[in-house]
Amino acid sequence: MDEFMQAAIVEAKKGAAEGGVPIGSVLVHRGRIIGRGHNQRQQRGSVVLHAEMDALEDAGRQPAVVYRESVLYTTLSPCPMCSGAIVLYGIPRVVIGENRTFMGDEALLRSRGVTLEVLDDSACHALMEAFIREHPDLWYEDIGE
Amino acid sequence: MDEFMQAAIVEAKKGAAEGGVPIGSVLVHRGRIIGRGHNQRQQRGSVVLHAEMDALEDAGRQPAVVYRESVLYTTLSPCPMCSGAIVLYGIPRVVIGENRTFMGDEALLRSRGVTLEVLDDSACHALMEAFIREHPDLWYEDIGE
Repeated sequence: MDEFMQAAIVEAKKGAAEGGVPIGSVLVHRGRIIGRGHNQRQQRGSVVLHAEMDALEDAGRQPAVVYRESVLYTTLSPCPMCSGAIVLYGIPRVVIGENRTFMGDEALLRSRGVTLEVLDDSACHALMEAFIREHPDLWYEDIGE
Repeated sequence: MDEFMQAAIVEAKKGAAEGGVPIGSVLVHRGRIIGRGHNQRQQRGSVVLHAEMDALEDAGRQPAVVYRESVLYTTLSPCPMCSGAIVLYGIPRVVIGENRTFMGDEALLRSRGVTLEVLDDSACHALMEAFIREHPDLWYEDIGE
């Protein structure tokens, strides 16, 4: 397994261990992780810190050029908010663990020229499947449904 | 002036007084403000807390139905990230102070059925114009350029 997706899964599992939504993400600049995060809805009562946003926030203020040389790894297909953040900062490539439990706004990302790689990873899928089964209310709240 | 846009401008001015990006926002549910916020890049080193996101975060975890009955007021046209958040949570209507200093992702919002009202407000415009003139680096960082 790709070491960066592995790091995103570590983040997702931290989220699960905290009783939160098990989605993790890392931002990678030129082969080095510069931000790590996981969904913070349950833990911090946040409605904006999805995993991808938490990783961006962890990376801190970066010059535009850094985002444009970075790859975002996320265990789950990015929702419209996270897709919008990817577009805002001009991140050119996103590696997605899986999109079977939730299809994000991949159409928007592709239409804006973002390259997507979907791994269809069984560990990412298993984390989400178990979580949605056990905590449907929290999950649907997280995606605005 | 609309009392809610006035409240968003109060937020923008708070941001300006703090040395930050002067953009403010309020989330209004059935005629009552449930969240207030302003851009937190300079103040909190945040890359995700644009004004609209800060207002959503201030409103806290809400059931889907609340967002769907809400109106988001923002002093500036919402960027792709904030537009994505509006789409995620299904906020049906956005009132925008101005879009002359920055045109956000209004096309995306309209394409997803969000109703937009652009006030072309001179106070909102003046705040941004002065800020961009005085702090171009901070401004371009905020929009990923």
